[in-house]
Amino acid sequence: MKQFMDADFLLTTDTAKEIFEKGAKNTPIFDWHCHLSPKEIYENQSPADIAELWLGGDHYKWRVMRSFGVKEEYITGDQSGLEKFKAFASALPYCIGNPMYHWAHLELQRYFGIYAPLTAENAENIYHECGERIKAGGFTPRELIARSNVACVCTTDDPADSLEYHDLLQNEADFACRVLPAFRPDKALQIEQAGFIPWVKALEQAANREIGRFADLKDALLARMEVFKTHGCCASDHAFAYVPYSPASDEEVERIFQKGLAGDTLTGEELDRYRTALMLFLGAQYARLGWAMELHIGPMRNNNQKMFARLGPDTGFDSIDDHQIAQGLSGFLNALEMQDALPKTVLFTLNPKDNAVLGTMLGNFQSDEIPSKIQFGSAWWFNDHYDGMREQMRTLANLGILGKFVGMVTDSRSFLSYPRHEYFRRILCELIGDWVEEGKYPCDLEFLSSLVADISYYNAARYFGIDTADAQ
Amino acid sequence: MKQFMDADFLLTTDTAKEIFEKGAKNTPIFDWHCHLSPKEIYENQSPADIAELWLGGDHYKWRVMRSFGVKEEYITGDQSGLEKFKAFASALPYCIGNPMYHWAHLELQRYFGIYAPLTAENAENIYHECGERIKAGGFTPRELIARSNVACVCTTDDPADSLEYHDLLQNEADFACRVLPAFRPDKALQIEQAGFIPWVKALEQAANREIGRFADLKDALLARMEVFKTHGCCASDHAFAYVPYSPASDEEVERIFQKGLAGDTLTGEELDRYRTALMLFLGAQYARLGWAMELHIGPMRNNNQKMFARLGPDTGFDSIDDHQIAQGLSGFLNALEMQDALPKTVLFTLNPKDNAVLGTMLGNFQSDEIPSKIQFGSAWWFNDHYDGMREQMRTLANLGILGKFVGMVTDSRSFLSYPRHEYFRRILCELIGDWVEEGKYPCDLEFLSSLVADISYYNAARYFGIDTADAQ
Amino acid sequence: MKQFMDADFLLTTDTAKEIFEKGAKNTPIFDWHCHLSPKEIYENQSPADIAELWLGGDHYKWRVMRSFGVKEEYITGDQSGLEKFKAFASALPYCIGNPMYHWAHLELQRYFGIYAPLTAENAENIYHECGERIKAGGFTPRELIARSNVACVCTTDDPADSLEYHDLLQNEADFACRVLPAFRPDKALQIEQAGFIPWVKALEQAANREIGRFADLKDALLARMEVFKTHGCCASDHAFAYVPYSPASDEEVERIFQKGLAGDTLTGEELDRYRTALMLFLGAQYARLGWAMELHIGPMRNNNQKMFARLGPDTGFDSIDDHQIAQGLSGFLNALEMQDALPKTVLFTLNPKDNAVLGTMLGNFQSDEIPSKIQFGSAWWFNDHYDGMREQMRTLANLGILGKFVGMVTDSRSFLSYPRHEYFRRILCELIGDWVEEGKYPCDLEFLSSLVADISYYNAARYFGIDTADAQ
Repeated sequence: MKQFMDADFLLTTDTAKEIFEKGAKNTPIFDWHCHLSPKEIYENQSPADIAELWLGGDHYKWRVMRSFGVKEEYITGDQSGLEKFKAFASALPYCIGNPMYHWAHLELQRYFGIYAPLTAENAENIYHECGERIKAGGFTPRELIARSNVACVCTTDDPADSLEYHDLLQNEADFACRVLPAFRPDKALQIEQAGFIPWVKALEQAANREIGRFADLKDALLARMEVFKTHGCCASDHAFAYVPYSPASDEEVERIFQKGLAGDTLTGEELDRYRTALMLFLGAQYARLGWAMELHIGPMRNNNQKMFARLGPDTGFDSIDDHQIAQGLSGFLNALEMQDALPKTVLFTLNPKDNAVLGTMLGNFQSDEIPSKIQFGSAWWFNDHYDGMREQMRTLANLGILGKFVGMVTDSRSFLSYPRHEYFRRILCELIGDWVEEGKYPCDLEFLSSLVADISYYNAARYFGIDTADAQ
Repeated sequence: MKQFMDADFLLTTDTAKEIFEKGAKNTPIFDWHCHLSPKEIYENQSPADIAELWLGGDHYKWRVMRSFGVKEEYITGDQSGLEKFKAFASALPYCIGNPMYHWAHLELQRYFGIYAPLTAENAENIYHECGERIKAGGFTPRELIARSNVACVCTTDDPADSLEYHDLLQNEADFACRVLPAFRPDKALQIEQAGFIPWVKALEQAANREIGRFADLKDALLARMEVFKTHGCCASDHAFAYVPYSPASDEEVERIFQKGLAGDTLTGEELDRYRTALMLFLGAQYARLGWAMELHIGPMRNNNQKMFARLGPDTGFDSIDDHQIAQGLSGFLNALEMQDALPKTVLFTLNPKDNAVLGTMLGNFQSDEIPSKIQFGSAWWFNDHYDGMREQMRTLANLGILGKFVGMVTDSRSFLSYPRHEYFRRILCELIGDWVEEGKYPCDLEFLSSLVADISYYNAARYFGIDTADAQ
Repeated sequence: MKQFMDADFLLTTDTAKEIFEKGAKNTPIFDWHCHLSPKEIYENQSPADIAELWLGGDHYKWRVMRSFGVKEEYITGDQSGLEKFKAFASALPYCIGNPMYHWAHLELQRYFGIYAPLTAENAENIYHECGERIKAGGFTPRELIARSNVACVCTTDDPADSLEYHDLLQNEADFACRVLPAFRPDKALQIEQAGFIPWVKALEQAANREIGRFADLKDALLARMEVFKTHGCCASDHAFAYVPYSPASDEEVERIFQKGLAGDTLTGEELDRYRTALMLFLGAQYARLGWAMELHIGPMRNNNQKMFARLGPDTGFDSIDDHQIAQGLSGFLNALEMQDALPKTVLFTLNPKDNAVLGTMLGNFQSDEIPSKIQFGSAWWFNDHYDGMREQMRTLANLGILGKFVGMVTDSRSFLSYPRHEYFRRILCELIGDWVEEGKYPCDLEFLSSLVADISYYNAARYFGIDTADAQ
């Protein structure tokens, strides 16, 4: 029997252990998609306790607690950090097989040096032990980033964002990790939502121009893209239940845009046409700027309207949608390709039923610009577990070129989430190790270690074009 | 090499063997969803032969025989029990990898003490050997239930059913197993089917009131629910190709109901509206009564109309549908939640592509009423095999809390089907054993044995609120 | 550690090795669906080099090269064979986990006696080594077929095809392999495509009759079917994104046909109606002729219109569609069944999410004509890899009768693709070996070896009714 989460966690073969050691363990992290706050990185405050770190904003953990029947006051309510932590610890042992179980213990091990399994019984002790470690230092955002060997982080930023904290961070000479903005114009596409008109106002301010027509919106976004570019932005990011492709005339798009600006209700078809027009514009600009376009496909959000009214979005009430996605996505990518305006693109799916659809979509639009120009994004959000990551990598390996994969992202709001890169790398090394030990691939440890290092870091560094000394 | 289906069948690790022994082997069964006949339990007749037990009504076996090219006269026709049994036995060895192979041999082992693999060659001998065991006794429905350590069974009953056999059974002092009705109003929802109007007549009789308007239907169902309640009912059950959510005004629903009563043809949208209205009513009543609402999603029924005309429904001509299910299901559950009227709910899918959709849907609507109020139902019907059960449990573990799972049901018409609980428990123990032996979970055998016992029996007993001495 | 791709490649248990040796290794191949050119088989030219064999027309390899960022001139352009081969060899080591890696090395081993892993470094040497082997002989189409122990091949032929090369081949007394046409009337169904009207002209020529009305089209197809029959045809073949079932009156179908003949644009619903009518006709004819109907469901073709304009169809720009397929397919099969006109049918899916839908669809329409009259086609095209084949066979085993499976096809344009049958057989034997060694099936090596031989060859020979001496 292997010991619980020891140094060889998830690694069972000699090959896996060796290529993890040589290619993964000390290779830096490029976390090219996350939801970290540049403001928090800049302000660099030490957390009050482990409860703040773990339960302050992590809707993954909130979901687990609600699924265990914990009262909301212990989740997002007024109970103390200790009480919340104890409530979470009570649920955790029942989460056998859940990635949360591994993430939590990796975080306790790597940042706190605590190796005991967390239970209801030892929760109070561990809470206090963590408190002492935090007091002793090393837990500010920048310290955690540095301790995690992170070379570069891409945050997720609205076009109307001033990027002031990115500005401030770029002047912090003693902070080695690069923090770059990523361009996330979801609000520009969500023309049907209550927030659209206020957001247009905010964008007018940020871009310093009036937005009366669709062309104005595009101009304002373009102006913001140029500002993002000067901050080192190398990626955009979009969330879709499905990617629409419904081309329409300029006049039709203008008519829809005016309805949206007037707050009128739009049909589903009108929404698809508007989004198609805006995405064709944005995609072409990303291609021109050399940015990668990340498409995150498949969430169904805010399913529980009672809790949405109480807590707002991103609080643990999203789940997986099941639209048909192949035709729209193909049509959209092809339309850009026909104009020679298809950017580097990373396709993510939240619904694992679509792994094979994406795994084959890639191959339709590759080019000699860069290896694997169209990428299959790593197992994401609800799929970010042992089975999901293994399945995504096997699908990519079966249908494309695993060796050119740009690898893992945390997609996280937490400064403690970097062990998810370690988790991913262990799963990658185990998978490759199995193939080698089963005689399915030659045992060339040097090549395989460099392949693992590529997938862990270097492929992404080259793909996004970040300028780090070691990303050769 | 492990011996064929020995005492350690499906158990390969020490951990798996130990937690099966301590947590599963002698833990009682609560079969909270099946299609057993309360009349047959009451009448308690001994079967004529193994052919009656195995081939009298089991459409799983009929499908296997048809797939082997067996003539229908040997399946549902006039051939003798021996000939039918021999025909089935001829097909069985070719069913390598099919759960039927394991179920059949578990039943031979557990009830008949026969350990030889069944083949065309030994079929006649085994037929006669089984006949002698049946003659020696122990094969009436109640004896089989008692031999199987079943504490409680929920049958599946139409609202118009008199529950007379449930009445009679409750007076049988020497039969320890509780037999409870479950409320299955599918016919109330199938307003488009030929049987609807006769069924309304039957319900009028059962509820002793006229049904002229939609409100009358609801009143009659309510009256029957109260009667079911007095019989200890704790669950309802619904079958859907997809769960609709299409809210409509009371007037519109009344108009559709009148069309249905008149035998007029309804559009798909009208059907969705009618069903939405009725389900919102029923769901709220289930919540008030403290019943669990089981939603069985995904069958496509009676695909072969030639055989349907000949043999009727439930004869082996159903298969898996592939509707989009996420949006409708989310809308329906949310509408109940918004009225504080969402009952405990168990979501089953017949299409394994939707495992992840359901596995994440749960998390949208949990509450502090009870741990894992929204449950992911076990791998069901066509998925009720090693791969399907393992996949359902891994999905639940990845996305929710496996430790609070209410576990297995037989969903069967056969009194010999209880070894499917054993099959499930072995798969569960093997899965957990693997995790422990791979260092993915601490080796706390006491806790894990109690977790296995919970998933085998106690979670369900608590969830459905049955009053058994040992369900603490 | 197992050695890389040695004699026991993919076989890890004694059972697997023994049943492969006895049941699979020397069993002939019946490749009942491929895209080999009867003209090339007849002309029987030796290839110029390994580049012609590997890269002359294989869009699988082209996709891999494009995904690696190789310039198109090295793929389908003017670069020399050596340069193209080197470009492919550079990509190959990064294709860890891709079936291409195994196919390529199986071909090097089996036909060239080369056992070194192919890399950028040794590519030039291996290119020349292969060149010498080719010069030494044994690499014409007929020699490769004979070396591969192929008893029978079904090509894929348009109804308008003259079958002249099939005629010529049938007179080649010294070529033991039977080469039969298969009837592929896709162009008759693609009434909306530019090629439809020219194709109708070609069919008029081939069938020697005018086609002015829908009945004429059916007559012409019927005439061609009779000709195909005289050439030993035993199978038809159809490709569908989804199988439509939308019945319409004869008048309506005639109206749609006339629109198509006039080159007018048809709606989606009109296309479905036309295709339904034609497929009902064709299916009934296949049943009458005793042919099997192969339905290949799920491709989304020619996604990249820029490359389509440059290179045409079947050049590596297809991917997996995600339509709902259950309802249409069930309706279509049922409509034939109701007329007692359902032929033997093989259902293939390109989207693995539909494995369970197909796996259960089979069971709705089986009969006593022949064991497993409705077949679940092997993992196909993008699914033709270790995981995909294993998944298809596990699904079939779980839901139907694996022992009656008609097994593997190459679906290939290459004369070197026969080791894919070996690949399939190894995976089959390993799967069965696992079940036996895990105690899930009795260890009856004689029966299991014959089962493997059946699935490898004999089931298909009986199912398609080919008259080979050893297909008893």
